[in-house]
Parts: sequence; structure tokens; C-alpha cells
Amino acid sequence: MSHVKIDAQVLGMHREKFRTELYDNVLAFWLRYSLDHEHGGFFNCLDRDGRPYDFKKHVWLQGRQTWMMSKIYNANRDKADAQQYLDAAELGATFLRKHAKTADNRVYFCLTRDGKPVSMQRKIFSECFYVMALSEYARASGDQSARDEARELFDAVLTYAKDPSLVGRPVYEGTPKLSSLAVPMILLNLIEEVNDPGENSYADVAKWCVDRINMHTRPELSLVLEMVGTDGKLVDTPEGRLVNPGHAIEAAWFLMDYARKHNDESLLRQAIRIMEWSFDFGWDEQYGGLFYFLDRDGYSPLQLEWNMKLWWPHCEAMIAYLMAYQATGDDKYFKRFEHLTDYSFKHFSDPEHGEWFGYLDRQGKMSQRFKGGPYKGCFHVPRALFICERILGELMNG
Amino acid sequence: MSHVKIDAQVLGMHREKFRTELYDNVLAFWLRYSLDHEHGGFFNCLDRDGRPYDFKKHVWLQGRQTWMMSKIYNANRDKADAQQYLDAAELGATFLRKHAKTADNRVYFCLTRDGKPVSMQRKIFSECFYVMALSEYARASGDQSARDEARELFDAVLTYAKDPSLVGRPVYEGTPKLSSLAVPMILLNLIEEVNDPGENSYADVAKWCVDRINMHTRPELSLVLEMVGTDGKLVDTPEGRLVNPGHAIEAAWFLMDYARKHNDESLLRQAIRIMEWSFDFGWDEQYGGLFYFLDRDGYSPLQLEWNMKLWWPHCEAMIAYLMAYQATGDDKYFKRFEHLTDYSFKHFSDPEHGEWFGYLDRQGKMSQRFKGGPYKGCFHVPRALFICERILGELMNG
Repeated sequence: MSHVKIDAQVLGMHREKFRTELYDNVLAFWLRYSLDHEHGGFFNCLDRDGRPYDFKKHVWLQGRQTWMMSKIYNANRDKADAQQYLDAAELGATFLRKHAKTADNRVYFCLTRDGKPVSMQRKIFSECFYVMALSEYARASGDQSARDEARELFDAVLTYAKDPSLVGRPVYEGTPKLSSLAVPMILLNLIEEVNDPGENSYADVAKWCVDRINMHTRPELSLVLEMVGTDGKLVDTPEGRLVNPGHAIEAAWFLMDYARKHNDESLLRQAIRIMEWSFDFGWDEQYGGLFYFLDRDGYSPLQLEWNMKLWWPHCEAMIAYLMAYQATGDDKYFKRFEHLTDYSFKHFSDPEHGEWFGYLDRQGKMSQRFKGGPYKGCFHVPRALFICERILGELMNG
Repeated sequence: MSHVKIDAQVLGMHREKFRTELYDNVLAFWLRYSLDHEHGGFFNCLDRDGRPYDFKKHVWLQGRQTWMMSKIYNANRDKADAQQYLDAAELGATFLRKHAKTADNRVYFCLTRDGKPVSMQRKIFSECFYVMALSEYARASGDQSARDEARELFDAVLTYAKDPSLVGRPVYEGTPKLSSLAVPMILLNLIEEVNDPGENSYADVAKWCVDRINMHTRPELSLVLEMVGTDGKLVDTPEGRLVNPGHAIEAAWFLMDYARKHNDESLLRQAIRIMEWSFDFGWDEQYGGLFYFLDRDGYSPLQLEWNMKLWWPHCEAMIAYLMAYQATGDDKYFKRFEHLTDYSFKHFSDPEHGEWFGYLDRQGKMSQRFKGGPYKGCFHVPRALFICERILGELMNG
């Protein structure tokens, strides 16, 4: 472990790079191309140059963009140009509240441009991003009814998480009893989002989430698994062997953030271990970049896209390594943050039209040219840029 | 159009190659590694060397292998080693009939090794492959109850195809009213399978299938689309612009086969056009091989695996081009059949362990090493080899 303090000038240079990318290249793209002033909400299927190639509205992205715009507004209230972010957040929040939720607290996955329901998943994530959106929007707008609605829906989400049959997913006699890493991760993240600064509601659920993530964390393998048995046992099937390095790295920074707030030094060390294991297992030594999926025993993953390089694992890894540096002062983490930043900006950022590409082949060549789709929108890129810019500022002042 | 008759020696060489590949390299692999003598049915998740990497049993593949083994038995009844194919078919049919179907005529998608239900899709394809399996198995075994069961389930499938809400797929106010090419294709194929030789049951449904496939066939684009509006209109969304060249080429040979049986010269010409359009649009001039998915207007397909080269489109294309040569005598189709055969045997066949690889990257390099998985089993490869071997034999004798 080495503690060479990173020079303030280097930190400042990075901070400026992140700030420019966030506001001028990424948020500018979404503000310019995604706002649907006619029907409300956002166009989230945007081609390379910002033109919509589909007018359907995917609720994950409607919620995430509403959250992001609210977050940016809340961090820039004193700035002259802040109002545009609040306006965008309101466009999303109003559309969501008008169209996305059913009377019995389920949330659709996809809507038409004018808000008619297209489809609903047998999963809880649309609900989660709705909660996330309204929680932050309530703080941006001061609308207490949005805050109340978010908490009411979050309570429903907690019941769905316990009993998947409530979202229509049938359980048969032979259905494997698996715990999915995604569930405690999103719930832990949501608790951070729902709680106001200093508030400590849902502490027991947060504790359960941390324990569950720990159950997926396997020191005997130096890995975090996407699926383990609900009894905590390893499962020797493609699902049970699945590793999603970017997802595990995202879990790592959720845990670092939680550990910092709760002064839990042991959890912090565990989170950093998770980050390092997952990076070491997931990094492609031959072509660079993080693999999307791997099998812990070296079988071919069933996912055809396993060796592609996606934007979001790299976003999560930038956050995690910078956070690890902030928490420990060990400059090896800063070096890797710089390395990840180089790879990511070089391969994903599009200075010509703005925003980042999302999907590269194994060699790092663009595979999909669009900037937004059913699973990519105004979220992972600006969130990573926003958090890293904030940490870099804290490091400069700290 | 040129009519250079292909030399009998060339035909014989190809026929021998297909026969050897079918019996010695492909069927031998499945007979050796897939039979579960303990619980019945087949291991369908087999690694490169035939070892199971998952013991779950996927019903599409259980049905397809039962069909294939029955078909091979029926074509080889007079041979000394035929019994092994009937035994394998019986292993599959018995397992399916014992475990795969519910009391209300739905069929599970996945079962445990010992037959407990794992999951059910909100689609009709598990049912379709069950019908296909029992129809051919009834002819192989002489078991009339299998024949009756297949027809009863097929009648249920026809009602599901008309009303997807019967398989639990909700339709919302904004759900696009789309016709899927897969449905008339599989139904047309099933009618061929259910009917005994010379029988012409379900003629009205077959006619409806041909009309539906024609609705997806767009001369103004020289393409067959996966999805069009149920009103026959083009739909300008990623779904409505989706082209799956291998799927369209499979539709082409289904139609050629139907046209031949019904002496429909105009439909035959239409089918050959579909084949040529789809090949021309789908062939990767840069690296060779057929793309998996394309967007008719050149947008990036949403499917991350769009540019991969899968085994089955190449299997379908070999059948289609050889059938087109047989139907027309135009040797340009035979040349392309040879070209496709070269590409396919070189890239997919595994002489070391048997069977074919299924999934290559765009450049033609193996991406997944397994031979069987939830969507690949004892079906497309042996079906293509079997049909081509038969046609080559007819050409030699004709």
C-alpha cells in the first residue's frame, strides 16, 4: 500500500474534464434531444445524432432521467442555468405520475409516446426507478405529495421483493430457489435515495441488503455471484456460476458509500475487496475493457453478448476506484481510476454528437451506434461523471 | 438463368459428405452424450466435449430431439442399427408425456432433470415442439395415442395462436397490434408434420399461414419482415424494421416445400425470391456468414448479438438453396449451396468432438464453445444434413 498524495493540479485537470463532459457533452445531449414538450416525458430511444428511432417510452429510463435531472438541479440550485434541469425533471415526473403506475401500485415497463401502456415486466425494477425518480424530484420541486407517493410505492416494492408471485412470476415445483444480487443492490440504493440527508429510515432493510450482498460474496472464489441459493449455497448451473463484473463493482461502491455513512471500516474493506476481485476477473487482458458476463468455472456463458464491452460497467468502475482512493488514500486505486477513465473516454465518448456509445464488441469497436435505447438513457454516464466530479472536488479541498 | 446439370459424381461426393457428417459426427454425438437413462429425456446443455454443464431439460430441445430421432428411425427402418434411434425417441417421448404438459394443455419451457417444472413461457413454441415430437414419434412407434395427443394439443395451439392472452400474455391499450412471422411459419411446418403422407387436414389453416407469410413479404423493400401490423401495414419501430435473414430463408424453404406439394408454381417463385432477397440483404460481404439481425433502414438493431454468425441460419440456407436448385435446375443455386456448405462445415463443424458449434462472432471466431444449450440441441444441424442428403439422393436418381 502506498500513499503518494495525488497532486492538486492533476485532480483539478480530471475534475475539469469530468465537469465539461457532464454538462457540455452529456446533459446537453439529453436536454437538446430527449424532451417531449408535446406529450411530456422523454424520448429515450435516440440514435447517434440524437434523432429518435422509436417513440416508445421505457419507464426505467423515464424514471432514471427524472432522477438525474432532479439531482443535477439540486446540486446547482445557485447557478443561473439550473432551472432547465428542474423543468426537465418536471416533464418526466408529471409524465410518470400521469401514465406509468396502475391503481394497484404496479408500474409498466413501456408506454407509447402519449402514455398508453405497452407492456409490464414480471420484475420490480420499473417500480424501483419510479421511486428513485419521485424521491429526488420531491427534493428538487418541494412537492411533498411526490415524496409521499415514492414512499408508499417503496413499501409496495418491499413486499414484491419478498414474494415475486405478487408481480406475476410463477414459482413451480422445480423452480430453483435463487437469490438475485440485483434485488438487495437496488433496494440498498433506493434506501439511500428515499432517505433525506441524515435520515435513517429502513435501517433494518438496509442491514438485510448488506447481509444478502455478503451472501453473494464468496471469499473461497474471490468473486461475487449474480445468483446463489436462498439458503446461501453455491448453485452449479449457468445461473449459479454467472459473474457480471460491472454489476459486482457497482455493488462495491454502493457498499463503500453505505460503509462510509455508517463508519463501518470492516464493510469498507470488504467492499474494496469485491471491487478488486471483480476487476481482476472481469478485465480483458487481450483487448482491454470489462467483459459483460463470465462463468466462474470457465464455461461459455449462455448470454450471446458475454464478451461485449458495455458502457455502464466502466462507469461503475470509475466511481468505485475513485471512491476507494478517497476512502484509503492508496494511490494504486487512483492510477486504476485514471486507466479506466482513459479507456472509457476514448472508447465510449462521442465528441461529435454528444453522450456516450453504449455497446462495443470485444475488440472495442462500436457495435450499436445509438445513444439511448430500452436499457440505456440519461443515467449511468451522467451519474458516474457527477459522482466522480464531486469526489474530485472533495479531494482537492480535503 | 443457366441450366448446367451438376455432375452425378459431384452430387455423390456431397451426398457422402452430408451422410457421414449426419450419422458419424452429429447423431453419434447426441446418442453418445445426451441420453439420460436414469430419468429419461435428454441432456440438452452439453459442453464442447459432450459433458453436461447443466442438467435442466429445455422442452423445445426435448421435443425437437424426439422428432429428429423418430425421423431418422422412420427413414432407416430397414437398417440394422435403426433401433437405437427409436429407443432414443422413446426416451424423449416418454419423458415429455410424463412431465412436460399441464392438465389444461399448456407445455412448460424448462424442467429439472427428473421432470419437475421450472418455468413456462408466455409463448406457444414449447407446445409446438411437443406436437412435432409426438406426431413423428407416433409414426415411428405405431403408438396411436401419441398421434391423438399431438392432434389434440395442436388444436389447442391453434386457439392460443389466435388469442395470446390464453398463454398469459397481457394485451394493454398501447400494445402494438403486430403479426409475428414466427407464428404462421411454425404452424405451416406443424401442419406438414401432423399430416400423414397424402393427408390434407388443416388445409384452411395452411392457406392462412401462407397468406400471413405473404403479408410479411414486402416486394417494395425486397425483404421479409419479422413483424408487420395485423392490418398488414409497415410499422416504423425497431420491431417493425427487424429483419432476421435466416428466419426468412427458413420461411422460404417451408413455402417451397408447400408449393411443391400443392403444385403452386407462383408460390414457388415467390419463395425463391424471398430466399434471394434475404440472402443478399443478410450476407456479410466483409467477413462472410449471415448476420443474425438487421434493421431494414440501417439503424442499429436493439439485439446486442445482431452481428453474430449463428449455426441455424446457415443450416436453413443450405436447405433452401439446394431445394431451389432441385425445383428450378438453375445451377447458380447449386453454386451457392456449395458456397454455404463450405462456409458452414469450415466454421461450425467440430470434427474433434462431434456436432457443430452454434455461436461465432462477426469475424467467424467461436464465441460459445458449447454444443447444446437452452436454444440449441439435436435439431437444426441434423435436420439440414438429413434433408440435404435426401435431396442430393433424389438429384442423383432423378
